[in-house]
Amino acid sequence: MIYPESLKFLVESFKKLPGIGEKTAERLAFAVIDLDDESAAQFSDSIKNVKNKIGRCKVCNHLSEKEVCDICSDKKRDNKILCIVEEPKNIILFEKIGVYNGLYHVLDGLISPLDGVGPEDINIDGLIKRIGKSKFKEIIFALRPSIEGETTMLYISKMLEGSDIAISKIAYGIPMGADMEYIDVMTLELALTDRKKIS
Amino acid sequence: MIYPESLKFLVESFKKLPGIGEKTAERLAFAVIDLDDESAAQFSDSIKNVKNKIGRCKVCNHLSEKEVCDICSDKKRDNKILCIVEEPKNIILFEKIGVYNGLYHVLDGLISPLDGVGPEDINIDGLIKRIGKSKFKEIIFALRPSIEGETTMLYISKMLEGSDIAISKIAYGIPMGADMEYIDVMTLELALTDRKKIS
Repeated sequence: MIYPESLKFLVESFKKLPGIGEKTAERLAFAVIDLDDESAAQFSDSIKNVKNKIGRCKVCNHLSEKEVCDICSDKKRDNKILCIVEEPKNIILFEKIGVYNGLYHVLDGLISPLDGVGPEDINIDGLIKRIGKSKFKEIIFALRPSIEGETTMLYISKMLEGSDIAISKIAYGIPMGADMEYIDVMTLELALTDRKKIS
Repeated sequence: MIYPESLKFLVESFKKLPGIGEKTAERLAFAVIDLDDESAAQFSDSIKNVKNKIGRCKVCNHLSEKEVCDICSDKKRDNKILCIVEEPKNIILFEKIGVYNGLYHVLDGLISPLDGVGPEDINIDGLIKRIGKSKFKEIIFALRPSIEGETTMLYISKMLEGSDIAISKIAYGIPMGADMEYIDVMTLELALTDRKKIS
């Protein structure tokens, strides 16, 4: 009774999103009321569309509205180099920087024995088959620095043993501009382990 | 090209809401992909519904899906007492505390000569007509503590001069310039209890 019914449902919907509490949900719902009609219609439609139109690219497993995503079907990209990521949003980040011009492969997560997630759960088979059919010269792992990331990386590397593909991982360490004081122990440990000789 | 088209539109939509930047918009859009079908459909529909179904109550100007809102048509409420607020969301806040049982009136903003907003722009006429037809014994102003709030209050009080209606304002334990939306419940409750008679 506090809200009109439709407003209540909208507040509830916003609250289902991560990091959105009651107050923020209300603020956003009221802001939707103030949107112009066209923006509101586009907002509503785009929610339906992301659910109905977006599937996974059958080559790389990235989010895509087509059977094969824009990146995989882009002839200008270097098909000799493959970057392996955990989630589609990691690709978005890489694409934004624009320094990488190879292809990607999205796993369905990371191996995590403690959570009962094994290699078969994250479709490593699909990745190995793809590599077998392609002519990659380098594979770069860009996985979250964690026990799960390391485990997944080791497992896949092992399956590729004997091939002549160069395998690397992105450097883990202290981010640019970070205050040393606030670096967590794990990051500092990684940064120390992965130290580079400079002279 | 970075996002599938529908995802791009969804990110753009989130970015139109206040306080939502690029990163948050992306995070929320990805979360929508992960919603179950029913939740996504409800989210999409509720956006359409708040735009199409919610109008203003013809009595008090509060948001309502009906011609007369639930509060105005509630016979159990005290129709001798009227609380004047700036925005519909202020009513929601009052209703949440549940200590007020009178009626409300929502202005279309506050008088602000500097922004070129005069009494005619916030429908003070409508308020005065409503008061003339009703039998209010007390009117409580619950406006944002600001120059505009004070100006609006003085203007309306002046128009009611000569009537025997008691006029008060909620106590300003509320700091100058604060957003009504972020006032904690205790402060608001005290402010309501300690309202001061001004004429």
